[in-house]
Amino acid sequence: MTFETTFPVWNKLNSNQKSRLISNLITRQVEKGTIIHSGLVNCTGLLLIKSGQLRAYMISEEGREITLYRLFAYDMCLFSAYCIMRSIEFEIIIEAEKDTQLWVIPSEIYKTLMEESAAVANYTNEVMGTRFTDVMWLIEQIMWKSLDRRLASFLQQESAIEESNRLKITHEAIANHLGSHREVITRMLRHFQNEGLVRLSRGLIEIIDEEKLNSLAE
Amino acid sequence: MTFETTFPVWNKLNSNQKSRLISNLITRQVEKGTIIHSGLVNCTGLLLIKSGQLRAYMISEEGREITLYRLFAYDMCLFSAYCIMRSIEFEIIIEAEKDTQLWVIPSEIYKTLMEESAAVANYTNEVMGTRFTDVMWLIEQIMWKSLDRRLASFLQQESAIEESNRLKITHEAIANHLGSHREVITRMLRHFQNEGLVRLSRGLIEIIDEEKLNSLAE
Repeated sequence: MTFETTFPVWNKLNSNQKSRLISNLITRQVEKGTIIHSGLVNCTGLLLIKSGQLRAYMISEEGREITLYRLFAYDMCLFSAYCIMRSIEFEIIIEAEKDTQLWVIPSEIYKTLMEESAAVANYTNEVMGTRFTDVMWLIEQIMWKSLDRRLASFLQQESAIEESNRLKITHEAIANHLGSHREVITRMLRHFQNEGLVRLSRGLIEIIDEEKLNSLAE
Repeated sequence: MTFETTFPVWNKLNSNQKSRLISNLITRQVEKGTIIHSGLVNCTGLLLIKSGQLRAYMISEEGREITLYRLFAYDMCLFSAYCIMRSIEFEIIIEAEKDTQLWVIPSEIYKTLMEESAAVANYTNEVMGTRFTDVMWLIEQIMWKSLDRRLASFLQQESAIEESNRLKITHEAIANHLGSHREVITRMLRHFQNEGLVRLSRGLIEIIDEEKLNSLAE
């Protein structure tokens, strides 16, 4: 797995652009829990994920969190290079949810490529459109879906990501994903347990009726 | 006011691109209340607003609305040409909030320009970034601001748009903007009246204490 085969518009670059990109490329390894990017302070560059998992979230003045989207292997993280797009005026935080290997394309290098190459600019557009779609889905969820359905849907996603029905996640972490409070999540999970959807134990949520959970998430 | 002076990247086009654009350009006049674009059905094209006002909103399965952003003279409406960006997979509705004059750039024409010209592609990026910023602001509002502050902020904006403290708007319309219910808005407006912020009469909301309203909206 090389950068050349992973970066989707590699073949649209000329040899000068290719060599500029490769000679400035940074390979980075970050541990689970690392904050890679935060707000409008640093402009790290574009992150192409080799392996691992990132979470993009917002934080309120009172410190409440909500997950906007998650990124996996082969995904491109754009907003860590927000400074190359003047119209981006919001602050998000990017955190490694697992140990993650990244390629970092420095912002200035990418900016020049975007200015030179319509292919790179249009690829950037597609990436932004994908994130836009994620965020619009989130608005639908928080506006029109009740918390029990959102929680069921979150457990479903987690189970798919982890490829397991035994989820090692705290109630606090779930609250931060869903923009809720720990107490509310604990209450809802106990309700799920009473309904026979999950079994709760210390630091563990076990999905025991997948079908019922899925039909609630629908 | 001509298309040439209004379209921000006009000077970055070559003469062939300019003539293709002009010969395919459509001028359209729409009445207040017209639905210009709806969901993933039609792909009208890009809309450059000459005069008037558009509203972009989402609608739930149950018919509840929420305003995503509004567009004014000189603004470009991108998502009415969603089909030229494969990654856009959400449905929004664009409605004329006032009588509006538009230039329509057919989707296919714009798509070719984007593919040929990095300047056009990067301009498109900037427009999408602006909408993204609007939508992120909305998420902050619905997650972390109470309805009284959102309502105060909405009345403030309306007053700025209409350049008047006398707002001819129904409680139902406000509920649709804010993704709430008419009854809830009516109750909140009566509370505002009791607090001396507004005066209510049939089809009219009059702001009588601007300072207090602004400090609530903060």
